[in-house]
Amino acid sequence: MGGADGRLPHLGARLDEYGEGPAVRALEERCAGLLGKPAALFFHKGVVAQQAALLAHGERTGRTTVALHPKSHIALDEEDAIERLTPLRLRRTGPDHRPFNAAELAAVREPLAAVSVELPLRRAAFQGNGWEELGAISGWCRERAVPLHLDGARLWEVQPWLGRPLADIAGLADTVYVSFYKGLGGLGGCVLAGPVDLIEATRAWRTRFGGNLYTAFPLVVTALDGIERHLPRMGAYHEHAKALAVALAGVDGLRVNPGVPHGNSFQLLWDAPADRLETVLRRLAGDEGIWLAGRVGATPVPGWSSTEVSVGDATLAWDLRDVADLCARVLQAARTA
Amino acid sequence: MGGADGRLPHLGARLDEYGEGPAVRALEERCAGLLGKPAALFFHKGVVAQQAALLAHGERTGRTTVALHPKSHIALDEEDAIERLTPLRLRRTGPDHRPFNAAELAAVREPLAAVSVELPLRRAAFQGNGWEELGAISGWCRERAVPLHLDGARLWEVQPWLGRPLADIAGLADTVYVSFYKGLGGLGGCVLAGPVDLIEATRAWRTRFGGNLYTAFPLVVTALDGIERHLPRMGAYHEHAKALAVALAGVDGLRVNPGVPHGNSFQLLWDAPADRLETVLRRLAGDEGIWLAGRVGATPVPGWSSTEVSVGDATLAWDLRDVADLCARVLQAARTA
Repeated sequence: MGGADGRLPHLGARLDEYGEGPAVRALEERCAGLLGKPAALFFHKGVVAQQAALLAHGERTGRTTVALHPKSHIALDEEDAIERLTPLRLRRTGPDHRPFNAAELAAVREPLAAVSVELPLRRAAFQGNGWEELGAISGWCRERAVPLHLDGARLWEVQPWLGRPLADIAGLADTVYVSFYKGLGGLGGCVLAGPVDLIEATRAWRTRFGGNLYTAFPLVVTALDGIERHLPRMGAYHEHAKALAVALAGVDGLRVNPGVPHGNSFQLLWDAPADRLETVLRRLAGDEGIWLAGRVGATPVPGWSSTEVSVGDATLAWDLRDVADLCARVLQAARTA
Repeated sequence: MGGADGRLPHLGARLDEYGEGPAVRALEERCAGLLGKPAALFFHKGVVAQQAALLAHGERTGRTTVALHPKSHIALDEEDAIERLTPLRLRRTGPDHRPFNAAELAAVREPLAAVSVELPLRRAAFQGNGWEELGAISGWCRERAVPLHLDGARLWEVQPWLGRPLADIAGLADTVYVSFYKGLGGLGGCVLAGPVDLIEATRAWRTRFGGNLYTAFPLVVTALDGIERHLPRMGAYHEHAKALAVALAGVDGLRVNPGVPHGNSFQLLWDAPADRLETVLRRLAGDEGIWLAGRVGATPVPGWSSTEVSVGDATLAWDLRDVADLCARVLQAARTA
């Protein structure tokens, strides 16, 4: 956080109260502009923004079934919130290892309240749907008057790979959610953008989910700062991620997925068991203060494990050769542990 | 916010992430200690803490009906969240103008998932249940194995009036929620305190309601500061509120409710129509920079309106006679507007 002089440029704005104030209004307008949508509303958490959006779509369509990917955040990482708290029910479609395409969506022969596309799909190695595929999905939805929602938790990050303006990408969907604390480096929060009446309809749901905060000022000012400082660097993060993926793929016993990252993040596969790799990574963090990877996951291939690599300002400074050598050393240690 | 030197003493602590970190742990332990409960969990918003608590009580009792006051925050000020998002249903009991007593609760002849007592009851002039009455309600619940939940949004503020330690008050209930941004002056957030297993059961609900924040650091450090700086002054706020109520009750055309405030806040009734009073108060804020009262409410008595008075550090500095004279001037202007 902080500009060149270490200060946040919007820190002098008046504190917002219960969603109203100059800084939060500036943030909402900035995002609406970037995404080419008539309205945008701040939420403290994507879990709430997306449930509110899908509830509003459900109220308009009179339907309750939401089609989405089985590895999407809504389906996997929210303690089944949407099915425990709302009348909406999930229809999972697509294979685990990549986003669904229009043909797989068309195989869902149920009346839908909405289709939700997580772009990129974090738990499928941060892979996005390509531009043509997105257009086909959007067209399928429009023909059937099914609202399309974009889970854009990492939309800023995937935009350079898609190579289209944010507003063109968001224009394929009815509603889009974007986040402030991943690549943008803020303290948290997000906005939901879309048509005025639909966004207005999400306000009551925001309150019901405890999203009508006394003040969101710390989230709002760091989000505005993130848009100014980090958003212009997403292209550089993407380029560095591609170069890093090439360097790591050159290490014997490591593979990257996808071969060319769809943004600033990708999956790194290790020919070593997860528990041993985790032990070595923890020791590295403790002994040398190097935090190479977070959670280590098992894979369906016995003996292979996976971690996530995300490029930001800190990673930009790393020498590619040094990172590759370090990973080779870690892999060797995990194999002989 | 800020200590004598303008700094927050916990600002140097490591940032919490997803509910874990030294500052949030310190806050939870501090509150558990103050309230005499084995466990306490941070929430970003009372709306969520209380729905999570009541859901956990419902899961344990196998029942869905929650008894509470018709003017309580849960019943009035949350866009019907609990009935729109959870299987719980509300059973309202007690008269609008004061908290319900044990006899009124006993008239509810339904199997209950929980009883929720808002202490003090803001929309009934911040009146609390007296100590004897609280004991009777608690006893009624215990005899029937009905969990008792305390909505303590202003529990810190009402404690000096009850004249018992916080832990004794909280000890009457199974779960208690306390808030950090009213009398304590923090940026927001709250904790829910109670038995270990029940508090643990609320974690999944916290996530479902979007309460598993990336970081709550700004809320947490200002809450810790509020406990250190404002909590010891609640007695002084209460004494000043009592003196202010006497001074205002002496103005012709003004009445206070209750006659002796049950904490730092009370209702001020004006013998003037709400719309005119609001116009005069707005002009006062614009012309003289004096913010005497927030929202002006109508009352069931034609021509009478109401505002809320809450005593904090700013109000402590006011001279009682000056405030009474100012209110007399405002009332006169509202009557002749």
